[in-house]
Amino acid sequence: MKAAYFDGKKMDLLEEYPDPSPEETLVKINLAGICGTDLEILDGYMSYQGIMGHEFVGVVIKSQNKDLIGKRVVGEINVGCDNCPLCKDGLERHCPNRTVLGILNRNGAFAEFLSLPEKNLHVIPDTITDEQAVFVEPLAAALEITQQIQIIPEWKIGIVGDGRLAQLITSVLKFHCVDIVCFGKHQNKLANLQKLGIITKIGIDSSDEHRFDLVVEATGNNSGFVDTMKLVKPRGTVILKSTVAAKENLDLTPTVVNEITIIGSRCGTFKPAIDALALKIISIDNLVDITFPLERFQEAIEYAKKPDSLKVFLKP
Amino acid sequence: MKAAYFDGKKMDLLEEYPDPSPEETLVKINLAGICGTDLEILDGYMSYQGIMGHEFVGVVIKSQNKDLIGKRVVGEINVGCDNCPLCKDGLERHCPNRTVLGILNRNGAFAEFLSLPEKNLHVIPDTITDEQAVFVEPLAAALEITQQIQIIPEWKIGIVGDGRLAQLITSVLKFHCVDIVCFGKHQNKLANLQKLGIITKIGIDSSDEHRFDLVVEATGNNSGFVDTMKLVKPRGTVILKSTVAAKENLDLTPTVVNEITIIGSRCGTFKPAIDALALKIISIDNLVDITFPLERFQEAIEYAKKPDSLKVFLKP
Repeated sequence: MKAAYFDGKKMDLLEEYPDPSPEETLVKINLAGICGTDLEILDGYMSYQGIMGHEFVGVVIKSQNKDLIGKRVVGEINVGCDNCPLCKDGLERHCPNRTVLGILNRNGAFAEFLSLPEKNLHVIPDTITDEQAVFVEPLAAALEITQQIQIIPEWKIGIVGDGRLAQLITSVLKFHCVDIVCFGKHQNKLANLQKLGIITKIGIDSSDEHRFDLVVEATGNNSGFVDTMKLVKPRGTVILKSTVAAKENLDLTPTVVNEITIIGSRCGTFKPAIDALALKIISIDNLVDITFPLERFQEAIEYAKKPDSLKVFLKP
Repeated sequence: MKAAYFDGKKMDLLEEYPDPSPEETLVKINLAGICGTDLEILDGYMSYQGIMGHEFVGVVIKSQNKDLIGKRVVGEINVGCDNCPLCKDGLERHCPNRTVLGILNRNGAFAEFLSLPEKNLHVIPDTITDEQAVFVEPLAAALEITQQIQIIPEWKIGIVGDGRLAQLITSVLKFHCVDIVCFGKHQNKLANLQKLGIITKIGIDSSDEHRFDLVVEATGNNSGFVDTMKLVKPRGTVILKSTVAAKENLDLTPTVVNEITIIGSRCGTFKPAIDALALKIISIDNLVDITFPLERFQEAIEYAKKPDSLKVFLKP
């Protein structure tokens, strides 16, 4: 099959890459999304080698479950060992022996086909478009926050970041709280949020400091943590979404002095995200940017790296 | 009055330091304790200048409340502005305009007298000795954990550190959970914990990694955070007690990937600590080390700095 293969240093289009494992359910990919994590992997995060891509929608070609064949599906990206206590608690996404689609020891979606265990797949209703379906994975990551903490309607919420994940998180949280301010850097992205009725700001001024009950750090880079800690009030809560957040010169003293709760937040389960899209509770349409054919993956990645780009798709 | 004054660089005994503010309740100090935070202040933490010391017991000499005069008291160390939303919520210890006894813009207990607002003082029952009373402040800090989170009896708990605060925390948590392991460095301190029936270890081996539901970092230095993150299991909880924890080269990526909850924890309220000592639920007697007269504060501090010292007291 055709696949964009990352050898740990550079990505190449291979025309004759071996087809995925026949022991799992085989999916022909309709559309894949490029995510911030993919750009981090290209920069060396996770030391990954293989086919990248973990946001996708496709059609089942081969499966032991005959009912699945021909169905349009998305797939949870973590594959657990099924034996450890975490897997037994339904937390395969924290299994110490897990593989992760396009991220950890498992080929991903920048290809013609991928395979996943049947239990990872979710059939997508016809009312959800392919573009929308690709958003199930990041939307699940946004909804994960509401499964980790109870959002109090009276809270003042700050979102740090204005990218795709920050926008999805804002869309989710505005169903819980009225008082949300998004702190970003890009006029076009903040304009998107303003259309949702969100107050946006470029830069933090002194009136913002220590004012927010909940601050979500979703910048995708290591600049967000300091701003986040400026915004959160004593005894407030921080949700940390960026895996590259604050790798250096970080001072956790204010966390202790101000008794802040910091909660790391990663992948969520897909069902609530599919429901939210099917019921049109959340719209992702203003986050759709451009689709490139798989062959032009290099161009697609350069486009996705631009500070003002929104969701970029690859079509095999 | 006689006072050990820290000018930001060195501490000196002043024989004629002005008496404390007559607008507050005046306390003649019986006994003061030297805490890890005091040693940090001597190293430049908080850029404090003034009389140090925040753990004390004393007798009220002057007060607008005549009933207090002659009573033996301890005192909550944070003095709020009484006007901000945090003060109105009973969280004076998070007031942005607070002073803190011996730590922030308020003279402390390494002296003959100190002053505090009447509302900060708690009368100590006769059954509590002076040495025990000095432990009210650090015991309140240990009990604070149980006010911040609900401890689940089935949890496996790891304590990182074996100093005075770590020992108080262990004493508190053993009422909530059976399965506690304390990771320390000092044989004599770990022996103390073994007497309480706690399993102790020097060093972390692979069987300990990612095994604990709750890990409390109470080393008082910046080495504890890395060990703490090794011990906590995915989706587990970390309590961060050390204000000097991890000021550099800290990587929060595992916090996100493993969805860890990190909770900063500082001072607690005094009432539960006084009750626990009065009811003899918690014993601090094996943490008492040595008492120096105030004049020999320099020697006392050198003694307190020794890795195997326990609580060191100053007597004016």
